[in-house]
Amino acid sequence: MEFTVQQIADLLQGQVQGDGQATVNRLAKIEEGTPGSLSFLSNPKYEPFLYTTGASAVIVSKTLEVKQAVATNLILVEDPYSAFSTLLEVYQQALASMRAGVEEPCYLGENSSIGPNHYRGAFSYIGKNCKIGKNVHIYPQAYIGDNVTIGDNTVIYAGVKIYPDTVIGSSCSVHAGAVLGSDGFGFAPQKDGSYKTIPQIGNVVIEDHVSIGANTTVDCATMGSTIIRTGTKIDNLVQVAHNVEIGRHTVVAAQTAFAGSSKVGNYCTIAGQVGVVGHVSIADRTIVGAKSGISKNIKEEGTFVQGAPAFDYKQNLRAMAVFRKLPELQKQVDELREKR
Amino acid sequence: MEFTVQQIADLLQGQVQGDGQATVNRLAKIEEGTPGSLSFLSNPKYEPFLYTTGASAVIVSKTLEVKQAVATNLILVEDPYSAFSTLLEVYQQALASMRAGVEEPCYLGENSSIGPNHYRGAFSYIGKNCKIGKNVHIYPQAYIGDNVTIGDNTVIYAGVKIYPDTVIGSSCSVHAGAVLGSDGFGFAPQKDGSYKTIPQIGNVVIEDHVSIGANTTVDCATMGSTIIRTGTKIDNLVQVAHNVEIGRHTVVAAQTAFAGSSKVGNYCTIAGQVGVVGHVSIADRTIVGAKSGISKNIKEEGTFVQGAPAFDYKQNLRAMAVFRKLPELQKQVDELREKR
Amino acid sequence: MEFTVQQIADLLQGQVQGDGQATVNRLAKIEEGTPGSLSFLSNPKYEPFLYTTGASAVIVSKTLEVKQAVATNLILVEDPYSAFSTLLEVYQQALASMRAGVEEPCYLGENSSIGPNHYRGAFSYIGKNCKIGKNVHIYPQAYIGDNVTIGDNTVIYAGVKIYPDTVIGSSCSVHAGAVLGSDGFGFAPQKDGSYKTIPQIGNVVIEDHVSIGANTTVDCATMGSTIIRTGTKIDNLVQVAHNVEIGRHTVVAAQTAFAGSSKVGNYCTIAGQVGVVGHVSIADRTIVGAKSGISKNIKEEGTFVQGAPAFDYKQNLRAMAVFRKLPELQKQVDELREKR
Repeated sequence: MEFTVQQIADLLQGQVQGDGQATVNRLAKIEEGTPGSLSFLSNPKYEPFLYTTGASAVIVSKTLEVKQAVATNLILVEDPYSAFSTLLEVYQQALASMRAGVEEPCYLGENSSIGPNHYRGAFSYIGKNCKIGKNVHIYPQAYIGDNVTIGDNTVIYAGVKIYPDTVIGSSCSVHAGAVLGSDGFGFAPQKDGSYKTIPQIGNVVIEDHVSIGANTTVDCATMGSTIIRTGTKIDNLVQVAHNVEIGRHTVVAAQTAFAGSSKVGNYCTIAGQVGVVGHVSIADRTIVGAKSGISKNIKEEGTFVQGAPAFDYKQNLRAMAVFRKLPELQKQVDELREKR
Repeated sequence: MEFTVQQIADLLQGQVQGDGQATVNRLAKIEEGTPGSLSFLSNPKYEPFLYTTGASAVIVSKTLEVKQAVATNLILVEDPYSAFSTLLEVYQQALASMRAGVEEPCYLGENSSIGPNHYRGAFSYIGKNCKIGKNVHIYPQAYIGDNVTIGDNTVIYAGVKIYPDTVIGSSCSVHAGAVLGSDGFGFAPQKDGSYKTIPQIGNVVIEDHVSIGANTTVDCATMGSTIIRTGTKIDNLVQVAHNVEIGRHTVVAAQTAFAGSSKVGNYCTIAGQVGVVGHVSIADRTIVGAKSGISKNIKEEGTFVQGAPAFDYKQNLRAMAVFRKLPELQKQVDELREKR
Repeated sequence: MEFTVQQIADLLQGQVQGDGQATVNRLAKIEEGTPGSLSFLSNPKYEPFLYTTGASAVIVSKTLEVKQAVATNLILVEDPYSAFSTLLEVYQQALASMRAGVEEPCYLGENSSIGPNHYRGAFSYIGKNCKIGKNVHIYPQAYIGDNVTIGDNTVIYAGVKIYPDTVIGSSCSVHAGAVLGSDGFGFAPQKDGSYKTIPQIGNVVIEDHVSIGANTTVDCATMGSTIIRTGTKIDNLVQVAHNVEIGRHTVVAAQTAFAGSSKVGNYCTIAGQVGVVGHVSIADRTIVGAKSGISKNIKEEGTFVQGAPAFDYKQNLRAMAVFRKLPELQKQVDELREKR
């Protein structure tokens, strides 16, 4: 997609300073701009790049006082960052709306319905009795088992695997390779030391505006549902075990794992490589530092914990500071004992 | 599938108390029961739900003394938990047996055979010279490379990737997105600091009754075989490197990693996010706590270790208890030194 | 593929001692040799197996002095290990060259080109405007989005997912289930506690001779590129976040995660289950021990760190040694205080 600088300025209700007929066809950081790219300048720290950038146009503040000659074309707006964000969204919507229709071969099971304006990529699979809303994008090689429900405007990327009976809300993104609804890890120990598989007959429920990262796995419940609530964002390679419930607007970074039946509150921030043991509850607005292990309930809202097992963040920092000097501490104690 | 309460009672050799012609079509927890669902009551703690449940029928003990009016229909049996487990199994077997046949398009390479009563989903791929047993389910978009052997009753879920020469036993489950037989991570450092790839010509051998979790990866051996023995259950997102051997009836929780040539015994329990370094051996019946790092051999059977690096579980607990108070300990030592 | 012992000897410029007409069809370790297999003896420690091996032929050193009767056939060469490595490479090249052509159905978008001597597996997908070099292997169910560039001799294994605009160099391997170019994890917190998705319009750039492990995920940049430079080898289940840059000839073991905008130098060794926080830089030739957490810049080349948070490796070892004995240290301090 190619636009003139004037067209971009009109879209952003800004003014052109320079050549309005110059054309741009992509977005770039100001320090990485090359001919054809459009950048923005918001943070004053980056102003020097304005005089050296190879970008064909830069969005700047109306109030900017240029200090040197500028080779690029300027688009003057109230708030460059906000204007650029608007452009990003328009750009992505344009990309998304371009992708519609059905590529063959793809598989649609009997008794399944899918709303208007959808995209189904080649080699995608939709089982029986599925109800899929409008404006849904299903990329190539995605698998959607029987009896799955998917809301409007949701995007299922390439190679996502969704087991039967899963329920997904509207405006969700499920990134490539994610697995929703695999069997919970349930095995009953037998007298001879072997394990018997406990049938897993529950499902996974994902509410609206949820994002699931690439190659993340969410197991179905043993009975009932594993639930991820509205607005929650989950990064790549995260493990969500059977019967876990994650609240609303919680953020979970990469490679974190929630063991069976753990409950996470609303508005929590869980950093990367965290582990949460089974059956514990985490209160709303909890912050868990990277690599922490949560081994018991966190009852107080707004707690910030760190460590494995985790405890108060500041207390952990102080303990770690002493930990590094443990050989000295041991030596000090040895000396005291000798001189005693 | 819809059944009458009487049909369920007959199957379980139980007696109906209430309406035997009421119908049920799914299983649910007693506290989540809705019309059409069948529940069970085993733990006395849940008895209050018996008087409020919306379930159409509940399996209860013959010896239960009902304390209030019951709106649902009862099925009286010897052991409700065991009866419900039986039902779960019948339910899953029924679901499984319903899935048979071949969905087109799917790919079957020359000289490959597959036994009777199998399911091959659309876009599944079977290479050349494969030998696949009877009652095998291969879900959509699964990939099975050349010369692969799979035993009877094994289920390969959607999008599983099995490299050439892999051997899988009978009654195994390989969950969606798992990869079996990818190249071992072997690179020989060169004089100029670069790495040369060491060809990986071994394979993966999975014995019988093994479960492999979603998006788990098992690398092939450099030479010989990476082996997972009978009855072992592996959770999601686990890494099993080249030439690893995991014994019989061992359980491995999510996101654990075994580095190259490590050996794990029989009847072990390895919790989540554990790391095992290369070339170490772990004795039978070892228990490894979550997030532990195993850096040397564990020679004694039945050892319980924790920590990174791991040592005796109780000793680790006690060390962690002091760790939290390290700033106080440092202060105590500082005071002693001042007053010395 | 079956060869006579004489054919192998000719290839390796070696001499046969025994039956040159005996045939071999696979490679095996000397201690696991069975009829039809070819082994080698390099490490003197393994010499006893020479007298008991079931292999049909063994490559040995010209200078070996045989101490007992040998039942197998020998191929005498200058350097058995090097000769065997040569064989391994020939073997793999032969396997690779056998795989060429196009299996149907597969999908090729408009305006995409692919060089000669390629393999495209069934159910593989190539979007629009892709430029793919020669001798490229694309295995079944691989997904290659629009505008992707792939260099010569690169192998894309089964079920790999490559998002639009990704650039991959020549002689790379991307193992099954890996995801390249998924959205960076970028969400702007809103006043009501919810998150707004920040559009991710950058891409992923993989240079030459890079290996990406099974089910590893590499996110695209928010703007600009996430970059993995020449010769770097990445193991399975690794997470590389948006705008990360990993230098040349660096090795990264399984389940490690790099958070957004972190920079890793050249010739580094990053062990398994390591976490690197966002925006930090790691100098060239840094070694990071397993399970470490890197929370700040490492500025000095050749540093070896361990721990979470990580510090000097030896210092960490000494601190861990005291950590194990913390209960005793506490007791010693308690005694000193009592006696004070």
